[in-house]
Amino acid sequence: MEKTIAINAGSSSLKWQLYNMPSEEVIAKGIVERIGLPDSIFTIKYGDGEKYEVVQDIPDHDLAINMLLEQLKALHIIASFDEITGAGHRIVAGGEHFKESAVLNDEQIKLVEELAEFAPLHNPAEAKVIRVFQKLLPKTLNVGVFDTSFHTTMPEVNFLYSIPTEYYEKFQARKYGAHGTSHRYVAHRAAEMLGKPIEELKLITCHLGNGASISAVDGGVCVDTSMGFTPLAGVTMGTRSGDIDPSLLAYLMEKLGLTDIKDMIDILNKKSGLLGLSGISSDMRDLEHSDDPKAKVALDIFADRVRKYIGSYVTVLNGVDAIIFTAGIGENDVAMRKNIIDGMSWFGCQIDDEKNNVRGQERIISTDDSSVKVLLIPTDEELMIARDVEALKTK
Amino acid sequence: MEKTIAINAGSSSLKWQLYNMPSEEVIAKGIVERIGLPDSIFTIKYGDGEKYEVVQDIPDHDLAINMLLEQLKALHIIASFDEITGAGHRIVAGGEHFKESAVLNDEQIKLVEELAEFAPLHNPAEAKVIRVFQKLLPKTLNVGVFDTSFHTTMPEVNFLYSIPTEYYEKFQARKYGAHGTSHRYVAHRAAEMLGKPIEELKLITCHLGNGASISAVDGGVCVDTSMGFTPLAGVTMGTRSGDIDPSLLAYLMEKLGLTDIKDMIDILNKKSGLLGLSGISSDMRDLEHSDDPKAKVALDIFADRVRKYIGSYVTVLNGVDAIIFTAGIGENDVAMRKNIIDGMSWFGCQIDDEKNNVRGQERIISTDDSSVKVLLIPTDEELMIARDVEALKTK
Repeated sequence: MEKTIAINAGSSSLKWQLYNMPSEEVIAKGIVERIGLPDSIFTIKYGDGEKYEVVQDIPDHDLAINMLLEQLKALHIIASFDEITGAGHRIVAGGEHFKESAVLNDEQIKLVEELAEFAPLHNPAEAKVIRVFQKLLPKTLNVGVFDTSFHTTMPEVNFLYSIPTEYYEKFQARKYGAHGTSHRYVAHRAAEMLGKPIEELKLITCHLGNGASISAVDGGVCVDTSMGFTPLAGVTMGTRSGDIDPSLLAYLMEKLGLTDIKDMIDILNKKSGLLGLSGISSDMRDLEHSDDPKAKVALDIFADRVRKYIGSYVTVLNGVDAIIFTAGIGENDVAMRKNIIDGMSWFGCQIDDEKNNVRGQERIISTDDSSVKVLLIPTDEELMIARDVEALKTK
Repeated sequence: MEKTIAINAGSSSLKWQLYNMPSEEVIAKGIVERIGLPDSIFTIKYGDGEKYEVVQDIPDHDLAINMLLEQLKALHIIASFDEITGAGHRIVAGGEHFKESAVLNDEQIKLVEELAEFAPLHNPAEAKVIRVFQKLLPKTLNVGVFDTSFHTTMPEVNFLYSIPTEYYEKFQARKYGAHGTSHRYVAHRAAEMLGKPIEELKLITCHLGNGASISAVDGGVCVDTSMGFTPLAGVTMGTRSGDIDPSLLAYLMEKLGLTDIKDMIDILNKKSGLLGLSGISSDMRDLEHSDDPKAKVALDIFADRVRKYIGSYVTVLNGVDAIIFTAGIGENDVAMRKNIIDGMSWFGCQIDDEKNNVRGQERIISTDDSSVKVLLIPTDEELMIARDVEALKTK
């Protein structure tokens, strides 16, 4: 049977999932961690709960992918490389060019590399991985699935910043967003669960993980999203500040004796958010188990910032049919979902405590008479990637 | 009769208004412009539409105030300095110390100066002016009325940024807001117009001028506001960017070859907003008379950002009884008020086009069956200042 592999490459990791297509059956998945570091970890899960793991130095993505393909054969998950007819690559930055998933020929890969400016840690690593696939599986169709594509439909009123227009025209300084594949997946799934054509729905999708973003989806089309030029903007996150007064950067740099703004941005990306507020952890679970009042404040700030974006997107959509929760926190944090929705009962949404008492299951979690529905939908970016490959295979 | 003068001092200007108190009758008002520059302009309006104007070099605030007091006598507006029993000074930054208007003795004036860090252009000039009043009118009660006081009731969930807590503890990096006296005035006036105790009302006050800020007022108490550590944050303004992705500062500095973040902040304060977006003007009226598509986009972005803050504050209040427009744009821009409210009909607010067709008049401008009321209330910060002085005089 034809197989498609969905690839999510980071600078030192490679996550993957192998599908039988078009049946969408997951036949194996795994991760290579600590690539380029000592004691890299190589894991494959397959079959009936079976697991293969090895710890050894894996110096680069080239070797990681080589090992992966050889091991798929050795474990009899595939009989020959030729079975893998498609590879879908998650790519962080698609800029204004990639408005949808695209077959990646040499020219397109070069474009992915040129967009490195918008995702310096990700795009170069991803381009490298695509080239390795080109080399090792020359007959396989490589497809790029971009985190930003779903957001390219935003109108300029929402993607422009209120700065001199020439910065957009000359330097492409604008809002791009992220997590697009996840927002797209849950928006379409929500329409199916609500039994309505997506074209008729006003949806607000909340991807709440260690990184978090909220999108406004009107008739299936993304019209606004909370992440910005980079993923630093928007709501409070695990270690990211989200929105702050830009003047604060100058003030804090002076106070902290910093001269390079990159060091300040680094603090806002890595030492802020829930971690900075609580001084304890970037992980919601640690905060929920803590007695420290700062942990409680951090949780309330997270809920407040998510609610504020939801409220602002109700104005963007001039209405809302459903609010959707997904990703780590959105799928698993019963108390946080309740905290967020309880604080906006005026909007006509009400959590059903019993239905909400669930983790990682697709479900409508609002009361039957809630006029705005609230949905829990586990995201599945890998499946979305495999589907996009399939669609381009048969085109 | 006892008189109170309300003073609004900038680094190169001095606006003032003289009241009979407690009758609140305005008996004269004026402005000194271009202080410290050649050809300063000194104006007094008084009596029955009479006007006194002189253009001469006025090197400092000391001389400006001296001229003002002498001229009030010369024009027979006052008979003696002793009539001016109170002087209310608008002060931009009150930090966390000044939670309400306060009598200014030497110690308090020193505190105003120490808060200069939060308003480098304003607080020092204001402190200077207070000292001149102390000298020239030694018997007069000097009262500070702070732009930030009304916002000091914000809960920490709303005033904290999602950055390391130590930056708040050590450097007082938090949200302070601005325009507090205006938000306070229109919130109380709205309750009177609606014939309800302010304690029972959820209000969203929109101070939309060249600087613009939105506040959420719950039972008369400010619980959130859109300006931040400085007035740069929040909605799109005449020349200020409002909220942007903090990462964009690093990116633009590199592109523009800037090494000092202050130069970048300067662009965001002075060359952004409506001016930056349109390339035409920071003045809403110029944009509304323009055929340039960029002017239209700038107007739509302004409306969008205001609506988004209103929507987010409906979540903060979990409801809203009335939305109030004030300041230059809010009081005079019929089309912009309509644009903003038309885009959020789902919330239960609807503009009455006939009632809305008015400038600078106190009026309910929503339809009779609009469940959320929309009000136009011309602001009067000077009256608020005079009232605060009066309240402290009789304490």
